[in-house]
Amino acid sequence: MSSSSRSASTKHQGVITCKAAVAWGAGEALVMEEVQVSPPQPMEIRLKVVCTSLCRSDITSWLAQAQPPIFPRIFGHEASGIVESVGQGVTEFEEGDHVLTLFIGECKRCRHCTSGKSNICQVLGLERRGVMHSDQETRFSIKGKPIYHYCAVSSFSEYTVVHSGCAVKVSSIAPLEKVCLLSCGVAAGLGAAWKVADVSEGSTVVIFGLGTVGLSVAQGAKMRGASRIIGVDTNPEKSEKAKAFGITDFINPNDCNEPIQQVIKNITDGGADYSFECIGDTGMITTALQSCCDGWGLAVTLGVPNTKPEIAAHYGLFLSGRTLRGSLLGGWKPKSDLPHLVDMYLREVIDDLIVPQELQIDEFITHNLPFEEINKAFDLMTAGKCLRCVIHMPN
Amino acid sequence: MSSSSRSASTKHQGVITCKAAVAWGAGEALVMEEVQVSPPQPMEIRLKVVCTSLCRSDITSWLAQAQPPIFPRIFGHEASGIVESVGQGVTEFEEGDHVLTLFIGECKRCRHCTSGKSNICQVLGLERRGVMHSDQETRFSIKGKPIYHYCAVSSFSEYTVVHSGCAVKVSSIAPLEKVCLLSCGVAAGLGAAWKVADVSEGSTVVIFGLGTVGLSVAQGAKMRGASRIIGVDTNPEKSEKAKAFGITDFINPNDCNEPIQQVIKNITDGGADYSFECIGDTGMITTALQSCCDGWGLAVTLGVPNTKPEIAAHYGLFLSGRTLRGSLLGGWKPKSDLPHLVDMYLREVIDDLIVPQELQIDEFITHNLPFEEINKAFDLMTAGKCLRCVIHMPN
Repeated sequence: MSSSSRSASTKHQGVITCKAAVAWGAGEALVMEEVQVSPPQPMEIRLKVVCTSLCRSDITSWLAQAQPPIFPRIFGHEASGIVESVGQGVTEFEEGDHVLTLFIGECKRCRHCTSGKSNICQVLGLERRGVMHSDQETRFSIKGKPIYHYCAVSSFSEYTVVHSGCAVKVSSIAPLEKVCLLSCGVAAGLGAAWKVADVSEGSTVVIFGLGTVGLSVAQGAKMRGASRIIGVDTNPEKSEKAKAFGITDFINPNDCNEPIQQVIKNITDGGADYSFECIGDTGMITTALQSCCDGWGLAVTLGVPNTKPEIAAHYGLFLSGRTLRGSLLGGWKPKSDLPHLVDMYLREVIDDLIVPQELQIDEFITHNLPFEEINKAFDLMTAGKCLRCVIHMPN
Repeated sequence: MSSSSRSASTKHQGVITCKAAVAWGAGEALVMEEVQVSPPQPMEIRLKVVCTSLCRSDITSWLAQAQPPIFPRIFGHEASGIVESVGQGVTEFEEGDHVLTLFIGECKRCRHCTSGKSNICQVLGLERRGVMHSDQETRFSIKGKPIYHYCAVSSFSEYTVVHSGCAVKVSSIAPLEKVCLLSCGVAAGLGAAWKVADVSEGSTVVIFGLGTVGLSVAQGAKMRGASRIIGVDTNPEKSEKAKAFGITDFINPNDCNEPIQQVIKNITDGGADYSFECIGDTGMITTALQSCCDGWGLAVTLGVPNTKPEIAAHYGLFLSGRTLRGSLLGGWKPKSDLPHLVDMYLREVIDDLIVPQELQIDEFITHNLPFEEINKAFDLMTAGKCLRCVIHMPN
């Protein structure tokens, strides 16, 4: 029996001892530890994590420069898993269900969940204190000492506990080692273009930052029929990959003699219709605003900033008709919408949506790593050498 | 013959010498001067100003704290007049036509004018250098020394020259001493609610600053069926007047024990659907964002700031689903849309718009002053003692 196998305690009530990658301090390499995972409390489920991919915001929060330093902590919020046990009152899930974790949940009852126009659940929204929504406690511990959660998901652990509103069942034929990317990054970018900006046919789009989120914006914009999709990144290696996702023009600001916003204005007759800030640099939000046009230009900010959390912009950018909008998980209602994206990936036609092409996910996966090598994923992303590293848990 | 009458020069070509209220320096009382008004150049028209009302942004630009100091200058941009003569090539206007001046014009040819989604004309947009769009020269002088324009309108003069794209013909039965308010303030507020925010029925609205613009937002929100319209102003005298324009709740932040955004959140179950910044204080834009709700809250900024031109806000306000949008002249295309508002004021039913009630204008006019007393209007507005002062030119 491996150290990750379940203890002898009763199935639905017992504590599981398993491996988790624990961050003990800001920017410190994760340490593989034996942790105790409590049984699910009422309306919670315990999952065996199958795959988890590393997202930029895990790194941003781990560095804790513009985020509160909450340690020791188990990061990870983009994951797939299988239900191991369910807590009292849970009827939606049963043991063996395949799920994606949700870093923002959907209670389906609050004013926002029932509104039809918001994915910011007022009950299971973004959890920032490192605890569970219900009781402000943790479900992880090491020898009795609590280990904090991240976004109420914490998928860098063989087992984790989430609220039943913070997971969504997906088709049992969906490959969990791929669709985990829909738990955050790919869905976030796709929805920003598709749902939040509602990119129109024939329009011009500029995207700052060509990581998984930025390239997913490109994919969404292409699906919506944008005629020109300009990608901006200082990493020249992004150029080739970008084309596969629909980028028509790649610009490296370091190769330009003018400020990038001026370059964009020059080639778009005064500015793009839409701009997307996918770097997580609040300073770039002004650039994004300056790069879209007077009158109807829409700048969408998706990033979680790695340093300064304040956005600053000249009022004239707004008075001349621009709009700045935020996008969290691409505006998708996580439980209601993500299964549709999984189905789209599986190349089925969904509901009444016209799907001009299937959804690309595999192309984002540049690395597959065993759980034990999770720190390599951090190194690769910090060095800008990957799109998504998928981390595979032991069977 | 009064000093304001026309000189003996040829009607369509001659220079007119008349009275104008000239600002010689930032914040200095206007001085009534004899000025020379050039004949209209090609595609321009010369107007006899009938009435001009004082708008807050005249004062902001006159104080020149966050705006460039351009002096000597003739302010005024919210006005009605009668065409005195037309320049070469003008076929749209003839002598005797009643018009409103337009501080942003409409060429009807550029990408924006033809777009159906922008009122930011790329040819006749907001003029900031104190000259005419066409040749970057002035049409005013005193003994050969140029006097600068304001917004290419300069209505604090008995006669002025504007581009033919910067005026719009209105019904000859419209009272020019009233409809001049539609040239800027009333239209700006009304359109911010109606067209830019597209306020929905049953929604909750909060308005910061209850001057003419803010109260026009209230009027627009009421017309669109908003169920609750909260007005915020530190001047307790605004309370009574506010109700006449649809404000359902008046809040004076000085009477509150909590920050105003918290007060708004408390009484609106988490924030209003829409918030409007009508003070011209960039610092209040953050408050406006904080006062509207997660998920779908829309903050609209209308003001021209009197001091700091930079907007600052925490990124989290956007990431949680808020939008910030600017509104210039309420998004109305000035030549295409303002005549409809005039007609609405005249209580006719327009096109296919359902007009639930007539448009209130008269109620905004708290003072009528002869041109000679224009400085009183500046004093009244600076002291917060008026909504609109209408300044009447001599016949």
